[in-house]
This record gives sequence, structure tokens and C-alpha cells, in this order.
Amino acid sequence: MKAAVLAVCREATIVDLTHGIRPQDIREGAIVLARVAPQFPEETIHVAVVDPGVGTERRLVCARLGPHWCIGPDNGLWSRLALWRPPESFVSIENSQYRRPEVSSTFHGRDIMAPAAGHLALGVEASLLGPPLEGMVTLDWRLPTVSPGVVEGVVEYIDSFGNLVTNLPREALEKAGLDESASVLVADRSISPILRTYGQSAPGQFVALFGSSGQLEIAVVNGSAAKRFGIGPGDRITVQAAQ
Amino acid sequence: MKAAVLAVCREATIVDLTHGIRPQDIREGAIVLARVAPQFPEETIHVAVVDPGVGTERRLVCARLGPHWCIGPDNGLWSRLALWRPPESFVSIENSQYRRPEVSSTFHGRDIMAPAAGHLALGVEASLLGPPLEGMVTLDWRLPTVSPGVVEGVVEYIDSFGNLVTNLPREALEKAGLDESASVLVADRSISPILRTYGQSAPGQFVALFGSSGQLEIAVVNGSAAKRFGIGPGDRITVQAAQ
Amino acid sequence: MKAAVLAVCREATIVDLTHGIRPQDIREGAIVLARVAPQFPEETIHVAVVDPGVGTERRLVCARLGPHWCIGPDNGLWSRLALWRPPESFVSIENSQYRRPEVSSTFHGRDIMAPAAGHLALGVEASLLGPPLEGMVTLDWRLPTVSPGVVEGVVEYIDSFGNLVTNLPREALEKAGLDESASVLVADRSISPILRTYGQSAPGQFVALFGSSGQLEIAVVNGSAAKRFGIGPGDRITVQAAQ
Repeated sequence: MKAAVLAVCREATIVDLTHGIRPQDIREGAIVLARVAPQFPEETIHVAVVDPGVGTERRLVCARLGPHWCIGPDNGLWSRLALWRPPESFVSIENSQYRRPEVSSTFHGRDIMAPAAGHLALGVEASLLGPPLEGMVTLDWRLPTVSPGVVEGVVEYIDSFGNLVTNLPREALEKAGLDESASVLVADRSISPILRTYGQSAPGQFVALFGSSGQLEIAVVNGSAAKRFGIGPGDRITVQAAQ
Repeated sequence: MKAAVLAVCREATIVDLTHGIRPQDIREGAIVLARVAPQFPEETIHVAVVDPGVGTERRLVCARLGPHWCIGPDNGLWSRLALWRPPESFVSIENSQYRRPEVSSTFHGRDIMAPAAGHLALGVEASLLGPPLEGMVTLDWRLPTVSPGVVEGVVEYIDSFGNLVTNLPREALEKAGLDESASVLVADRSISPILRTYGQSAPGQFVALFGSSGQLEIAVVNGSAAKRFGIGPGDRITVQAAQ
Repeated sequence: MKAAVLAVCREATIVDLTHGIRPQDIREGAIVLARVAPQFPEETIHVAVVDPGVGTERRLVCARLGPHWCIGPDNGLWSRLALWRPPESFVSIENSQYRRPEVSSTFHGRDIMAPAAGHLALGVEASLLGPPLEGMVTLDWRLPTVSPGVVEGVVEYIDSFGNLVTNLPREALEKAGLDESASVLVADRSISPILRTYGQSAPGQFVALFGSSGQLEIAVVNGSAAKRFGIGPGDRITVQAAQ
């Protein structure tokens, strides 16, 4: 894919986000994109290929989400990031002028998406890639439920340290009237208060804090919370006023 | 090695092909190079170090294969790619002007190959790197055997999805008078017909199709064929007319 | 982090040293930096984040070590490289002008270190990043003990081939009056003489040689010495005159 980008735009700067998404796991890809893509400079072109439907009817799309361009399959992969910034423009990549001369039926990342990204980097208008679309495919994103004094969410992602990253931003707690004195209930354990940083607790202790992407995380200082709790994506997290 | 390239040519664009070749496995390195190198733009300089003979008599070479430059040990690593395009020029890298001032006896990738690549990128003529050679070292590449109605080949590579990639291009089947209605025999199973893409079959099904590098592949939709069959490189694949 | 560098300095060339340091293992990080950083061109800016103390009192620093700039936490991570070249200048990164507008309490690599590196790459003077410091934090680096005819050291690092890399440079042996005929004692085995390269011995044989970073290494030709000996970092290595 990098070769296919550079063949079109020799001056492109290419950065790998990750090669660690589980094969075909669109949901994990969508969560990682939502966490990391917003960190990039404006006008970055994000290309992502988690594409179990390659060669079938699913569309390949170019979307403008916030200040970024996004190229990939329309299978839900962009729908978590689109919660953050809804598409300003959204086209189906169909113009054969901006793909490789021979298109395989199993690797559209190389043959269609990477060349489209290269052309966009060269300055080609997104509207030339293909016709406009409406209605991006989405996944079932479980949003937090907020009631006075209680917030319910889920573990959404396990990072490379084994920290449990939830779908709970600071604002959800504020809406429920909770502050950092709250208790975080995970499995059969209650963690309180919410700290500012790992270093405020001792190695091996469970801590809850707002991580680098702004979501509540449960961690074990210098250890793996995922291993200690034995829980993962989809498992429930509750935050309530400390008893 | 990247440091050694950039020390010579600050403007080089460096792309990692893979760091996943099994240590000292020249054959696997040669197969991956043959699959991936042709995807790169013309005038790309490929540097590859699978070099169990470092510090011994094996030569380091710079070969022109098709529109690309190839730098590495002459131990068979380039011989699969050279089946595709035989060397147009081929020199032994010996000129001490184009290496690091101190050459270790265990890491010629850093001390000789990377600086040679940097100089080539700067515009130094390949013929200045050292004297011309004839007769590239080759490995035993088992080519398909083609007879009327039957093609025999082997599994050559397992990709990161667990797909079994064979040494059978579409042309081998055409020579045998076979089309997509043929049966692919692998282990004790017969797969038919040859599909155009994974999405034409259901998750968990065995499929055969021509993959992104043009070779016949056996896959399990959304799964690992390598695990399901328990077979790997060198194991036999037969294609014959469907019964 | 790459996004944060590129947001400041669009022209930066970024090279990954490794993502393979064990989480929170400052010592392993320091050893890898000492091995690899000196291979880079002059004026390279090294950024390293092994930072268990993120969000606590530990300082973030910019040090001039030899011809290189080094940015990271002052927790010992730079102290192995500083044995090689003591700091010429050393400042605490505190100027809020050179960081991201919002600084998280858990990811200073992204929010403070990467932007500081970007500004340095743009040409900002290191002295503007913050006030000068004295006294870098160091770890307990076990230096070789040298007596006539005997050198004692330790395994310091296991490379990706399973080679045991020691803290013994060639000069330590020379000081002890030893040459390549010496015996290297590791676990209950004696290896002699010290070879120039792996290829001088047969596959499966134990060999000792000076590796690509100039330190004595114990290897198994085409195999893993770490697995064969079952030893690792901190274990003792003795070199003495052959019997």
C-alpha cells in the first residue's frame, strides 16, 4: 500500500497507525481510529483497511470528518470517528482514473484506496473521486447512560499496557453530578477516588483516571488491568457517588 | 540500517517491507521479495538482509532486476524475484569508498548494504560499487508441473491471515486447459469452483481464488486456512478438472 | 507522537528505533539507546518514552550527548548513553510555549516530548525549552571488573536472534592482557577462541565474538543462545586465559 501511495505521490509522508487490529475486527479498528486520528494535523489523509467484504458490494468511500480526510470501506470503520465529527462531504470512490490499472478482487487497499489517497495528497479534489453519498454505514455504538448520580458505560478497548479504556468521557460524569470522589465499579471491585495520574498510587494498585484520549480508564500501576480482572471489550463499568 | 542510509542520503524515503521473516530463512525472504518488490515504483532500491553467511565468503551484490535496484547478499535471496526479471546488471559491492569507515564482521546490512543503497539513492552509478558478476546464486524453486487437465504445485507462503499462497499463477491453469470450474485438491479436501473473491462464500467456508499477487490461494473466509489444514510451505496442491 | 512531531515540523524524518521494550523497563530502554543512538547521523533528535513516572515529579529533559539531542524523562533512560558521552548541555523542558495546548497527565510523550522535538527540528534553541540542570538521574551500571588475565562482566541484553550481548568491550580484554585465544565462561561452559564471525563455526555451535556494537556476544550459530543457556540480563560472564 505504501508503494501504491508513493507511486502516485512521491512526496507523501506516511505514518503507520497500527498493524495490530485483529483480522476483520471492524469495531476495534473504528475505536482505534476514533482515539488516534484526531491527534493528527489538519488535512491528514487517513487510510484504513479492515475490509472483510473486499470484492463484494460494500462501497469504498472518501469522507471529510472534521479537518481530516478518511479513505476506506464504508462498513462501520469510520462510524465511531463520525460520532465526533459528522461527515461534511462523503463520496463513493469509483473513478477509474484514480486507481491502479489492474484491480485485484482481494486487495482494494493497494489497488484503489492507496492510489486515491495519493491523488488526494497531490491535490486532486475529493469530489472527483466519485459521486456523493448519504448515510454512512454505522455499528451499534453503546453510548453511556447518564442518570443523576450514576453513569453506566462499557470497556471499549484494551491498550498495549492492558489498561481498560471505557466509553466514558469526563463530561458524562459531570452531567450525572459526579466528580473525582466518585467510585468506579468494575467486576466485583470498587475503585475510588478517580486519580489524576498513575504515579499517585503504588505499583500493583488498581486506579481509575481519565486517559490520554479523555476517556475513563481502569489500570493497574505497572501491571495489566485486563489480566487482573479478566474482562474486556463490552463488559460493564458503573460510576456512582462514593458510599 | 536506516540511520546508515540517512547518514549518506538525508532525503531518502524509507519503507519497511517486513521484519517478520524467520531468522536465517532465505527462502521465505526470497518469496516475500518476489511478491512485494514488483509493487514498488520504478527505480526503487530494495535492500534485504537475510544473511546467515555474514562475514564469510558470500558476496554482497547490487542487481538490476526489471526496473528496480536490489542490494543484499548473493545467497539466493534475489533468485525468486530474478525468475520474474533476470538481472540486467549485477555487480559485487566491494568499493570501500561507499561503506562505513569501520566495517563490523557481523552486521554488513548496516556497514555495507545500507550505505551502498544511500549512495545509489544519491545518484552514484551502480557500476562504481564494484566489479561485474555473472551467475547469481539460486535456490531450488519448484515450478509448477503442467499437463493436460492437471497442474501440480506447492504451498509457498502463509500470509498474515493464514491464507495458503501457492506457486500457481493463472497462466499455469490456462496452459493445462483448466478454468475456474476446476477443483483444487489440498490435504484430503476438494475445493471448487475457483472464486473471484472471499465475499462470494460464507464465513468458515474453504475457498480458492487468485490473490493479490496473482497466485492461487486457499483461504478460509474470516479464518485461517493454515490452522484448519495444518499444512504449510512445501506441501502439495493439485488442480484438476472438476469431476 | 508522530502526529505531534509532524504538527510542529512537517518536514521531520521520523525513524522508529523499537516498540519492543518491555513496559516500564527503563534499564532495557537505556541499553538499547546506548547501542543504537550512536549509529545515527549527527544532530539526530532522539525521543524515548519509557516513563513509569508520568505525571509525577520526574523531570522531562533535553540533553546534548555527543553530537545528538536526547529528549525524554530523566529517570535513568539516558544514563547508559551518557557513560559514552557525558552531557554537554542539559535542560528541563518546562516552557509551555513548546508543548500542546492541552497536556494530559498520562501521555507526556505526545503532549510535551514530541512537540519539543518538533520545535528543536525546526531550529529552536534547546536553551529555550527550559532552565539548565545538573546531575542526570542514573541507574546502577555494572561496569566490567578487569584484573590481570581475568575480566568479569554481565549479560546486558538479548537481541532478536537470542544472542547474549555482554557489557564487555574489546578494550576491557586488552586491559587484562587477553586476546582472542581467551576462554569465555558462561553458565557451565567454556567457549574458546573468540571468533571474528558466526560463519567460522558450524550451525548449532556456541560461539563468542565481538558484535556489531563492539561488545562481546555469546551466540549459537543459526540458533538462540538465550534459549540454550537459559540465562539472561544480569547473569555473569567471565573471560580468562585459555587453559
